Amino acid sequence: MSKLVIVGTVAFDAIETPFGKTDKILGGAATFIGLAASQFNNVDSSIVSVVGGDFPQKYLDLLSDKKIDISGIEIVKEGKTFFWSGLYHNDMNSRDTLATELNVLADFNPVVPVNYRDAKVVMLGNLHPLVQMSVIEQMTEKPDLIVLDTMNFWMDNALDDLLKVIKKIDVITINDEEARQLTGEYSLVVAARKIHEMGPKYVVIKKGEHGALLFHNDDVFYAPALPLEEVFDPTGAGDTFAGGFAGYLAGTNDFSFENMKNAVIYGSTLASFCVEKFGTERMMNMTDEEVFDRLKQFKSLTQFEIELS
Amino acid sequence: MSKLVIVGTVAFDAIETPFGKTDKILGGAATFIGLAASQFNNVDSSIVSVVGGDFPQKYLDLLSDKKIDISGIEIVKEGKTFFWSGLYHNDMNSRDTLATELNVLADFNPVVPVNYRDAKVVMLGNLHPLVQMSVIEQMTEKPDLIVLDTMNFWMDNALDDLLKVIKKIDVITINDEEARQLTGEYSLVVAARKIHEMGPKYVVIKKGEHGALLFHNDDVFYAPALPLEEVFDPTGAGDTFAGGFAGYLAGTNDFSFENMKNAVIYGSTLASFCVEKFGTERMMNMTDEEVFDRLKQFKSLTQFEIELS
Repeated sequence: MSKLVIVGTVAFDAIETPFGKTDKILGGAATFIGLAASQFNNVDSSIVSVVGGDFPQKYLDLLSDKKIDISGIEIVKEGKTFFWSGLYHNDMNSRDTLATELNVLADFNPVVPVNYRDAKVVMLGNLHPLVQMSVIEQMTEKPDLIVLDTMNFWMDNALDDLLKVIKKIDVITINDEEARQLTGEYSLVVAARKIHEMGPKYVVIKKGEHGALLFHNDDVFYAPALPLEEVFDPTGAGDTFAGGFAGYLAGTNDFSFENMKNAVIYGSTLASFCVEKFGTERMMNMTDEEVFDRLKQFKSLTQFEIELS
Repeated sequence: MSKLVIVGTVAFDAIETPFGKTDKILGGAATFIGLAASQFNNVDSSIVSVVGGDFPQKYLDLLSDKKIDISGIEIVKEGKTFFWSGLYHNDMNSRDTLATELNVLADFNPVVPVNYRDAKVVMLGNLHPLVQMSVIEQMTEKPDLIVLDTMNFWMDNALDDLLKVIKKIDVITINDEEARQLTGEYSLVVAARKIHEMGPKYVVIKKGEHGALLFHNDDVFYAPALPLEEVFDPTGAGDTFAGGFAGYLAGTNDFSFENMKNAVIYGSTLASFCVEKFGTERMMNMTDEEVFDRLKQFKSLTQFEIELS
């Protein structure tokens, strides 16, 4: 078994889309990352996070049932769980944040479970860069691969801390607008090169419905998003992508550029399920056969046979 | 040799981008389509269009030098050539039209040269749908493949005529916003299905820097745009794509879905050159070796080796 440490939020989400709305349901970056990584049978994932006394045991059980270690999820009995609420517009590409209640996240000191401190792969989900840095520092052996996901909020509010943690990682996953904000470059090719210079050897730029780009020096790989009839709820798609990416790499224990292409395809495949239902619903009920069929769809979507001779 | 009939504008363009501006230079949909198709040595292309007495002989010679038949380009001595002027914004994805002077195009009656009326492939570039229909009607044998490119202007101003010509064609190439406008559907998968129902068996949706999608019944193929450091001038990229697509199919004489995938890749490859310089400059100076190298780049950009067993 390959160990994978995941840090990120475990949260309540309330979501409104043109298709309907939810009450508070299970959400959070680490939740989606963990569920995606749980697809890989030879990966032993541990989530490092914090929830309040209001967090239902049944949600924790859902994660345990997926063989995810939850001993690193601190429960602050007198506190309330992080809550996010958002409203998606008709195009499903833009959203308004209606509420962000940090609650127990405000004073979160992550503790990586002792038996996961030698994990080969670390996935730093979207959280304050100081929390991400603390997880890196707790690892007793230098991980083979550290993947970091972040967002514009930390560029606006904790840029210095973010740049420090970016220096320490191998792969960054970031969306196109954030890559532009971080570098001041419109061209994603130029932006990726500037991010390389900040530290990460691999840069993954997520473009939502337009897919994802993987950069490594002068090499580029492009994975489309699967064209879908209907995107029901995009919440968690980026985290699911990151979890599929990191989980695949942990499971194969091969961190070459060629294998990272496959990891991007796996991430895209799992994300295509995530958006089909509200919250984690689809990720909870996804069979190996369905994943396999969709990987085949990705192949026929992208592969061609031009004679190059 | 496979004959390819191309109808579309041959025009003057004046272009302003963040990188600079041009005086009136050679432009027009048929020009870009013809230059792209001229890459295929076994394709004998003929442009059907109209220019004014102000159109320089040297521009016509440039086309002839590329072995493009120009006997179907009518010269109205007392008239002026179609003129378009545009200003691109910083993101290069949006533009303002500064001037559109129809001039000789206002009364254009296309005449397909007699020895091209049995062409197997017809490429109807962006023009009034009645002009496109007239070209179809002049073909003495039913072509194996009719490809149509159009834009929102004709949806706004000649929708009934457009729908009539759409019924008669095999492939439509259209951009994402136009596909949405034509069908009233946001999802491109649903939009493509509705366009199928209007007639074309194959639907190509162009997404600019995000690539292109090819739909045929339930099959989908996705070709990214090559990630470029710098897009210098997007003018003509869509036409170049269409010309590469139609030219490749004419040259291979294979109109299967599998071969259309290759055609989409060729179209994307040629379009990636087009945007590197103002107007037709790059298309005029492009070697077979450069095209071959870029096709290889497309392969490494998109191909992966996941074991599916």
